[in-house]
Amino acid sequence: MRAVTIRDKEILVEEHPDPVPGAGEVLVCVRAAGINGADMMQRRGLYPAPAGSPQDIPGLELAGEVAALGPGATRFEVDDRVMAIVGGGGQAELAAVHERQLMPVPAALDWPAAGGLPEVFTTAHDAIFTQAGLRPGERLLVHGGAGGVGTAAIQLAIASGAQATATVRREELREQVAALGADAIAPEGFAEYGPFDVILELVGAPNLAENLSALAMGGRICVIGVSAGAKSEINLLALMGKRARIHGSTLRARPLEEKALAARALEREVLPLFEAGSTRARAGSRADSKAPALTVPIAETFPLDEAAAAYDRFAEGGKLGKIVLTL
Amino acid sequence: MRAVTIRDKEILVEEHPDPVPGAGEVLVCVRAAGINGADMMQRRGLYPAPAGSPQDIPGLELAGEVAALGPGATRFEVDDRVMAIVGGGGQAELAAVHERQLMPVPAALDWPAAGGLPEVFTTAHDAIFTQAGLRPGERLLVHGGAGGVGTAAIQLAIASGAQATATVRREELREQVAALGADAIAPEGFAEYGPFDVILELVGAPNLAENLSALAMGGRICVIGVSAGAKSEINLLALMGKRARIHGSTLRARPLEEKALAARALEREVLPLFEAGSTRARAGSRADSKAPALTVPIAETFPLDEAAAAYDRFAEGGKLGKIVLTL
Repeated sequence: MRAVTIRDKEILVEEHPDPVPGAGEVLVCVRAAGINGADMMQRRGLYPAPAGSPQDIPGLELAGEVAALGPGATRFEVDDRVMAIVGGGGQAELAAVHERQLMPVPAALDWPAAGGLPEVFTTAHDAIFTQAGLRPGERLLVHGGAGGVGTAAIQLAIASGAQATATVRREELREQVAALGADAIAPEGFAEYGPFDVILELVGAPNLAENLSALAMGGRICVIGVSAGAKSEINLLALMGKRARIHGSTLRARPLEEKALAARALEREVLPLFEAGSTRARAGSRADSKAPALTVPIAETFPLDEAAAAYDRFAEGGKLGKIVLTL
Repeated sequence: MRAVTIRDKEILVEEHPDPVPGAGEVLVCVRAAGINGADMMQRRGLYPAPAGSPQDIPGLELAGEVAALGPGATRFEVDDRVMAIVGGGGQAELAAVHERQLMPVPAALDWPAAGGLPEVFTTAHDAIFTQAGLRPGERLLVHGGAGGVGTAAIQLAIASGAQATATVRREELREQVAALGADAIAPEGFAEYGPFDVILELVGAPNLAENLSALAMGGRICVIGVSAGAKSEINLLALMGKRARIHGSTLRARPLEEKALAARALEREVLPLFEAGSTRARAGSRADSKAPALTVPIAETFPLDEAAAAYDRFAEGGKLGKIVLTL
């Protein structure tokens, strides 16, 4: 099979042996695979793939059709449309994935959307609900609202009856972010728009002090991205005074059972919201029972052979939504 | 009534008007009232009492007998032995306390123990279980193991089937801390004894970086004291890598309903453990069904008139357990 390959910090497309699905695994014929910030870090040699994942093939998510079943795999049948978060190796023609990590692809989604959904929606859902416990009526602030995780978090918050505010550095993207249901603001002076119950930090340490000022009593800060820097001063007395907590998290290093739990939560709580005209019955949701379905904003797709260009496009920034490889 | 009074950062004992119990409140004839770090901060003008509490009478906890019932108070009868956390005003001959904040005093406890129990055991229980979710078999590290909250946290952890390690600055106190069931160690190089699932931080910011190194994957740090400093650098990438969280908390500023919930949790989960020979039926507890009862270590008691000396003794440090005023 052919796959994106990292060699000496370069993005190539090379031949690799076909993976063989082991016990409980499914061989997926990949149709689309999103690019994420972790791939950028892996290219720079800063974020090696976890043990058991291909070390030289990047890709944390994929969507495709079931090509074959390993011994004991029973959840899916050949030709089923599936998608998943994987520890690595997603940007390839074939991938062997444990069936408990796989989710069915909602009928309303095309391949690019399915290939760009798992990482950002699982990350956003895990961070704002499972970790930070966002509740209907609460206020969410997303730092980096135009990116993949940001656009997912905004839509999930709105769908659950919470309110969303998002900082967006590029003025030209704010209108598109606002169309997702958020108040889209400039990063400068964001604390004026608070207090916020939950802050999703995708940018990094420079925001930390102002995040603490902007936090409501009992507020929660989820740090899942530090692209602008990892180290900052923290005032623990301010943390105590707000009775606040700060979570740090990554999905990639989690063991199979935790990734599978996150996939089940997404299947149950999020995937139904992607069906067109889905009824949002959750407490606090908008009055119209036929709310618009969630979407996976796609900035641009690239064929596998143009993977290097896709990576460059991702690194460039200034986009709304995902960069996805199509196969 | 007579009460400890803070005037110009001095500790005096002065006459005050008797409090009158309002709706749902109980008038308590105070027999013992513990001194806490918050009283020290209040004396220095750094920690004003919350609205609705006496501003010039310190004291966050008390034990005594019910002297009278306000309108609609039904949980207790006159002469019942009760104890509570209060927002202030505990170090006085009389105090009006909402009945939902009060707890019955276990028969095995004398007045000094009852007067020194509520603040430290509620604080420790709330921090390590309600917030940090300490589980049987997990490892707790307590920074400041010889103090009131530290000795409470160690005993609660052991009683719940967890393991406890405690840093104790004064070598001469380590044996007494070890007698409570903890590994008592010097603060220097504590991370060598990890990894720890929960770290209870009673000392402050200087420990933060080493705390993050000493934390197990998925670990939790609870910051409830910053006597050695509040500001520190934090590496958010380390927090993400450990999938860790940092809680800040204080009890004092919480509204009535949250203080009442904490009191109910203590009644249900902790007070039975103070009865001599209580059966510890909790998962993971020691094999002997008649485990020794929990204790409230008392360093020294002072009569109300010697409140200033009691405050000086507290500030001096180097003690194991509580300083309690007796009335």
